[in-house]
Amino acid sequence: MIENRRRFSKQEYNERALKTRKAMFDKGIELLIVTDPSNINWLTGYDAWSFYVHQCVVIGTDNTLFWFGRVIDAAGATMTTDLCAENIIEYPDNYVQSEQEHPMNYLAKILTDKGLNKCKIGLEKDNYYFSARAAESLYHDLPNAKFVDANSLVNWQRAVKSNQELIYMQRAGEIVEKIYERVINVAHPGIRKNELIAEILHAGALGTAEHFGDYPAIVPLMGVGEESTACHLTWDGNTIPDNSGICMELAGVHARYHSPCSRTLYFGQPTQKYLDMEKMVLESINITLEMFRPGMTCGEVADVFFDFLKKQGFDKANRVGYPIGLSYPPDWGERTMSLRRSDTTVLEEGMCFHFMPGIWLDKWGFEITESVIVTPDGAKCLSNVPRKLLVIE
Amino acid sequence: MIENRRRFSKQEYNERALKTRKAMFDKGIELLIVTDPSNINWLTGYDAWSFYVHQCVVIGTDNTLFWFGRVIDAAGATMTTDLCAENIIEYPDNYVQSEQEHPMNYLAKILTDKGLNKCKIGLEKDNYYFSARAAESLYHDLPNAKFVDANSLVNWQRAVKSNQELIYMQRAGEIVEKIYERVINVAHPGIRKNELIAEILHAGALGTAEHFGDYPAIVPLMGVGEESTACHLTWDGNTIPDNSGICMELAGVHARYHSPCSRTLYFGQPTQKYLDMEKMVLESINITLEMFRPGMTCGEVADVFFDFLKKQGFDKANRVGYPIGLSYPPDWGERTMSLRRSDTTVLEEGMCFHFMPGIWLDKWGFEITESVIVTPDGAKCLSNVPRKLLVIE
Repeated sequence: MIENRRRFSKQEYNERALKTRKAMFDKGIELLIVTDPSNINWLTGYDAWSFYVHQCVVIGTDNTLFWFGRVIDAAGATMTTDLCAENIIEYPDNYVQSEQEHPMNYLAKILTDKGLNKCKIGLEKDNYYFSARAAESLYHDLPNAKFVDANSLVNWQRAVKSNQELIYMQRAGEIVEKIYERVINVAHPGIRKNELIAEILHAGALGTAEHFGDYPAIVPLMGVGEESTACHLTWDGNTIPDNSGICMELAGVHARYHSPCSRTLYFGQPTQKYLDMEKMVLESINITLEMFRPGMTCGEVADVFFDFLKKQGFDKANRVGYPIGLSYPPDWGERTMSLRRSDTTVLEEGMCFHFMPGIWLDKWGFEITESVIVTPDGAKCLSNVPRKLLVIE
Repeated sequence: MIENRRRFSKQEYNERALKTRKAMFDKGIELLIVTDPSNINWLTGYDAWSFYVHQCVVIGTDNTLFWFGRVIDAAGATMTTDLCAENIIEYPDNYVQSEQEHPMNYLAKILTDKGLNKCKIGLEKDNYYFSARAAESLYHDLPNAKFVDANSLVNWQRAVKSNQELIYMQRAGEIVEKIYERVINVAHPGIRKNELIAEILHAGALGTAEHFGDYPAIVPLMGVGEESTACHLTWDGNTIPDNSGICMELAGVHARYHSPCSRTLYFGQPTQKYLDMEKMVLESINITLEMFRPGMTCGEVADVFFDFLKKQGFDKANRVGYPIGLSYPPDWGERTMSLRRSDTTVLEEGMCFHFMPGIWLDKWGFEITESVIVTPDGAKCLSNVPRKLLVIE
């Protein structure tokens, strides 16, 4: 039972560490303090809901690679990683949420003991789990180190997925198909929002007959009618009336790998504006999907989409997608590239994106989105959820 | 539908702002940048899954009180708060997850325009959603401001709950009762972990006939057998065999208010060590619950518990509880006091705690916990889940 908590071969973890060390070396970074839980997992396999306390993986261009976390989480590190006991380093519980002592003070002592207190240290300075105080504790306690911002260094290494990662992504895609099957089966005018969400959560954890559903890094988002203009509202206990449009942003998840998929539902006979919007969005998807080929840039993909939209008289203020993969709350994006006109990143085979042509207007919204793999033939969709306005009569 | 997204009266929000301003005034803080989503909600009602991008509420000891967030989230701020349009300030989408520009650069411009660039500014320096780069962007762009760490200033104002908050907490307690009813009904040897989790998530969102279940700030945690020694593992697709002990940490949630409750299940006839542990933990709960009275300190509560445990030959390395209430991922604790020997905070009527006598040994773990309100008669439990080892035969 413990053995199969390891999701990838030792060799794959070794390759990831090597790739990371090479990127560090190219930037002259000798030591990297990795605090993003997704990066921690990608480098070591560590998987637990312990990111509400300070923790990190420290990797050096020498042989350094250790997990550092709270005393009661060391057992989880033993169970989910291949690190040996001396590379699972715990800090005492009195450092937890204390105003007196910060876990990064403790880490500074460890680094000093190891003679790693004078090197060039990379920090993930814009990560959720690396607070201002964490940084300032290190600056204070390691006055001879040189600190640089290496915010998305590891995230970038994750952009192109391995074969095993793509298998997990596709399983996640099968799971989101199951979720929408459930939605179509149970949704009806008069259902309470939280009842529908309960079914979505149930189907999401159940997964497929072969593969368990994991928790999504973002809870199911649902906007009914005018609420759908606000993209990130969650549910309450109100009923969904007849003749409502409902935007849903959901994801299937397996072993922390995500396949997001948004759809719009309509209860009753859709009004013409919904049908017109459906037609336009589907066309925008068709012409954009074939752009997801190696050699294209994020900006070129975005241009095709935004130019088409503009011709139809629509202006969309936000990006039209982002890379996806392994993730933890609060975000299933990888926070590297964005599908916006100004992004010059070149696509490579095996990158994965949530392509997100959501349209949010003053009084209503509309979303049909796809998670895709970049291939020489254009986008390969991770799931096969009916790509249309889902009408429930 | 939009109106009832407001969870508290305007008067209650006014009182909260006043309480916060008073605490700021006492510390000489003129302006506070509030980034903790729970604090943002408590001050304004703002409720959306948008904390994966930078956002804040800015409150001053003058009349300043505004929401600052991403352009596409302003609609959500309009729907869930009483702020007028001029106090909902959005930043453009090109600031989102960009290496070139940080949302806090944009906020600095706003503060400068408002003449708020020379005051003493409090920051929540150890909050998940206030990164090192966020702080350094402000330091750079507001050279004439004086910055101080006001990490848990708002959190402390939330410690004593209002009547309406206690109503929500008790509804959350009723929801966790429903969750455990479901667990007891469906659990059986051979069930897959994710199947059991699917039922927990379903029951949690369904809530009670009257009150919807909201999403918990921590997903259901489950450790089977030896895995229960690692406190924060989540589920996978393995089956739970007969003769297993299973630790579960779950919460009922209503309108973002949490009532956590842990229980240990046993599939089959429990071994003597589980029965002995049950007896000891129940006794520890009985003698400790009556300590949750106004005037006692956190340390005095912890002493009673830890002294009892020591007499039984057990040493517990971590704190035995923490305050609870309104929360967002990744933590349902309030991150102020802790139930540990060294904490001298005096309890007040209406404070709420998750009292957490979890025992994690080398090869197994055991948890029976209660969420409680501090009252003159000692702890009042928020839920009435059977307080025992839950044996499933």
